[in-house]
Amino acid sequence: MKKSNQEETRQHNSRLVLNMIYHSAEISRVEIARRSGLTRTTVSQIVAEFIDSGLVIETGQAPSQGGKPATLLQVDENSRMLVGIDLAESQFCGALVNLRGEIVERFCLPSETVNSEEAISRVYRLIEKLLELTKRPVIGIGVGVPGLMDPSSGIVRQAVNLNWRELPLGKLLQERFQRPIYLANDCQVSALGEYTFGSATGDQNLILIKAGRGVGAGIVSNGQLFHGENAGAGEIGHIKIEPNGEICRCGNRGCLETIASTRALIQNAPVTIDTFEDLLQAYHVGNPKVVAMVEYAAQALSETVKHLVSILNIQQIRLAGNLSHFGNQVLEIIRSNLQSGVLPALAESTRVDMAILGDDIVILGAASLVLKNELGLL
Amino acid sequence: MKKSNQEETRQHNSRLVLNMIYHSAEISRVEIARRSGLTRTTVSQIVAEFIDSGLVIETGQAPSQGGKPATLLQVDENSRMLVGIDLAESQFCGALVNLRGEIVERFCLPSETVNSEEAISRVYRLIEKLLELTKRPVIGIGVGVPGLMDPSSGIVRQAVNLNWRELPLGKLLQERFQRPIYLANDCQVSALGEYTFGSATGDQNLILIKAGRGVGAGIVSNGQLFHGENAGAGEIGHIKIEPNGEICRCGNRGCLETIASTRALIQNAPVTIDTFEDLLQAYHVGNPKVVAMVEYAAQALSETVKHLVSILNIQQIRLAGNLSHFGNQVLEIIRSNLQSGVLPALAESTRVDMAILGDDIVILGAASLVLKNELGLL
Repeated sequence: MKKSNQEETRQHNSRLVLNMIYHSAEISRVEIARRSGLTRTTVSQIVAEFIDSGLVIETGQAPSQGGKPATLLQVDENSRMLVGIDLAESQFCGALVNLRGEIVERFCLPSETVNSEEAISRVYRLIEKLLELTKRPVIGIGVGVPGLMDPSSGIVRQAVNLNWRELPLGKLLQERFQRPIYLANDCQVSALGEYTFGSATGDQNLILIKAGRGVGAGIVSNGQLFHGENAGAGEIGHIKIEPNGEICRCGNRGCLETIASTRALIQNAPVTIDTFEDLLQAYHVGNPKVVAMVEYAAQALSETVKHLVSILNIQQIRLAGNLSHFGNQVLEIIRSNLQSGVLPALAESTRVDMAILGDDIVILGAASLVLKNELGLL
Repeated sequence: MKKSNQEETRQHNSRLVLNMIYHSAEISRVEIARRSGLTRTTVSQIVAEFIDSGLVIETGQAPSQGGKPATLLQVDENSRMLVGIDLAESQFCGALVNLRGEIVERFCLPSETVNSEEAISRVYRLIEKLLELTKRPVIGIGVGVPGLMDPSSGIVRQAVNLNWRELPLGKLLQERFQRPIYLANDCQVSALGEYTFGSATGDQNLILIKAGRGVGAGIVSNGQLFHGENAGAGEIGHIKIEPNGEICRCGNRGCLETIASTRALIQNAPVTIDTFEDLLQAYHVGNPKVVAMVEYAAQALSETVKHLVSILNIQQIRLAGNLSHFGNQVLEIIRSNLQSGVLPALAESTRVDMAILGDDIVILGAASLVLKNELGLL
């Protein structure tokens, strides 16, 4: 019992020091000791281990304040690589990501029209390819899965688009790659990614809405992902919006996804188009029927945003996914519905903006899951 | 630093032991040591303090298993009193509550038609009266406030029905009564109360919806109240349901409270009634217009329940407040909308039931807030 406490304290202190170095431009051992309350000896021991392993480097001397000048430390952001995988869109994409959330190498494979077995093989190939692309140590593999996940067991409970049910994907990847594997719902990892790499405000709370091939939300509360009881928190895509709406792939009728997902927008388009890019173009040249359809999708989504704000009282809302490509008009519709649709005191304090991470949000989110779990960086 | 760690460990162990005694019918020191991993000496010291202070009593001997028979322990549920106050309904009510959530004494004062100053005076009188009614030690006062609260500072940010704004109620009560004071939103304390005293299932998660004078929800996640950033989580009463609905007291139009609150039901009643009891009677004798109105209110509420389930993935939903008095038909409407209105996998695992605590839920919830904070009992 005592031993495990010592081990815990050691890891806690080690992560505390690493977070301080990571979140400072440059910092000295003395300053770390001052801010953390740890002894200088403890700090020096921890830092020595980081330097030995290459995770931290000495970058120069602080301006002398009379005494011996202090050596400054930085995390070497390219000393370790993270693999982030996005299975949420119409192709499987992944990247090698450095410790600052910068994409170093990227690789994609088509995933449409493949069966569920072949889909697993393509995930393997994608990861193999990425691992071949670097000689740096890869500390773990994170995967954003479009569906209901059990993150602790790594089992995909249901991913409709991929036709996966009760698939032990975590175990399969672990056996094949012998590295730490982290899986979570794609919207949940997106929220974590936006929080880790896209949030300069220092806020501990964030709702990330992703309206792409699927529609969902990820919730960060007090710096942690809010999963819900079965990791299904944020499954807003299958809330019924239109009582007599179209049949959804979940079996119900009129779900938000039948109105605001990429697929729905293409299918429901009042002009002949083949791709989402065609639709975007028709919108941006101002085709009134296309504009009306997109505005209706934004209205449908804002029904759920009202509830998100009122239920969670989280003040920072970010929008990602294809729906965000239509630009500010979508945001304005959501903002305006929020103003008249929830308690004024809640509406006043809520901000709705575009996600900073853009289309790489799932890849970066999956990478941030590794960063958080393996290095304790937040 | 070391000292405070020792103090923390001491309190942690002490609360661990008290929780074990509280949650067992009877338990021996030996059994506590076995389950907690603490030494017998530590357990004996902690138990001795509890016995000295009267919080724990020895109740007899366990059947001997060969050796010396072990003495059994119980929490003396009447050794301490909690004060729980409910400001949410049309009168102010409070009670002395024992450590098992049983109401020992109760007292109410009319609160309608009083101004905001007079409302504060009545809260004082209510608490004074309750304190006069017992000679037992009262370990704290909990208050459920209908409105937006800042629980850490004890400031009522806005309570529309009471016409309070930025009122430092926690400080006022603290100065007057010189005892620990805990305040929270009435729906949030209701959720905590239902979790503490009304949940036999061992679940760590619960959504409590209270549709009475106001409409709101309280969220318990992993055994803790989920407050949101400004303690406004669960403020569902002011979500717009009808775009062109009635003007709400919050200034917006068509809020859930304009349809499902007690006031709305009385005002909108299609028959001449004076009180909620009259309305209940008209419903139970089957007046078709009254039945239709109540069903419409349940439909409106179920719009929000769909979102609660999809956003939070919490599987246990309980209904309290006046709307619950209409009985099972209300539950059935919510259940049925849930079946077709959210992802089937989420709907299947969600249960909607009446709250067990009934109309005393805010009083008991406020008392549970004291129990949790002062004794660490959960």
